[in-house]
Amino acid sequence: MSGPSVRTVPDGDDRERLVCPDCGFIQYDNPRIVVGSVVTFEEQFLLCRREIEPRRGFWTVPAGYLELNETITEGAAREAFEEACARIEIERLLAVYNIPRLSQVQMFFRAHLPAPDFAAGPESQEVALFAWDDIPWDELAFPSVHWVLNHFRESEASGDHTVRTNPPGETGDMRKR
Amino acid sequence: MSGPSVRTVPDGDDRERLVCPDCGFIQYDNPRIVVGSVVTFEEQFLLCRREIEPRRGFWTVPAGYLELNETITEGAAREAFEEACARIEIERLLAVYNIPRLSQVQMFFRAHLPAPDFAAGPESQEVALFAWDDIPWDELAFPSVHWVLNHFRESEASGDHTVRTNPPGETGDMRKR
Repeated sequence: MSGPSVRTVPDGDDRERLVCPDCGFIQYDNPRIVVGSVVTFEEQFLLCRREIEPRRGFWTVPAGYLELNETITEGAAREAFEEACARIEIERLLAVYNIPRLSQVQMFFRAHLPAPDFAAGPESQEVALFAWDDIPWDELAFPSVHWVLNHFRESEASGDHTVRTNPPGETGDMRKR
Repeated sequence: MSGPSVRTVPDGDDRERLVCPDCGFIQYDNPRIVVGSVVTFEEQFLLCRREIEPRRGFWTVPAGYLELNETITEGAAREAFEEACARIEIERLLAVYNIPRLSQVQMFFRAHLPAPDFAAGPESQEVALFAWDDIPWDELAFPSVHWVLNHFRESEASGDHTVRTNPPGETGDMRKR
């Protein structure tokens, strides 16, 4: 199969799109929405060690792609259940980050676990609660995991609940690190 | 051409996807991000009368689909320029709405015009500034245009800058109106 693999500007459009040379289908590719949560239980943070690429073996907050017909809170709750078998209670939107090179918009909520019930889902090697000082900072999977944990902490300390965005100058591009 | 038109669950997946019967391409369809702005100039609101379907002839705030490799503020500024030839200054995120039936996440900013310079772009019949009481409430294009104008007003009046979400019970589904 070919699939949409030829880059061309369709008639009446002003941008290159991927077109299938076999069937002529034009793919209007859209940015992707990642939804996730900083989940706490008694001032500890729920993290998942990834069983899948990219960044297999590294730690992340529960997060993943929003599916069709989902609301963003439904998606964030589903990801926490899939990755950590955790039924979380979502409180509010904490941060919206842009990763323009990957065409991603990442939206993170503040959430908590009503009870310390969790387990590794099929996409996690391990799931655990960490006190702030025990978070494996050098083994976090993505820049935005660093950002959102720090934004959570800063938002708690200041009482300023304004939705956070990318730290100044940061684009989330891991190739530049 | 067929394009991805047959609904089936691909091997190893757990959801129905659209597959092209000609070339076998699997379309992983993603929710779409709409970015827009409530744009003011001296307490008047910038609205565009749509030249395109859906809801041609009705009024909207400048908004449209986020493109690949754009940040959400870049997308909102581009839409204001395309639809209203306006160079806006974006201040902060005002609201995030879900329209799950359409698989849309809509993100609206508070923005202002530094000068009253605007004109109808190719997708607008007309662009104008309206005082609050002169807004054509019965001719607004979409439920979320109502929501965001009211949320803007409520946020100004209360000083509460928490990001707003859908009004209670509202899904943005125009078929139900």
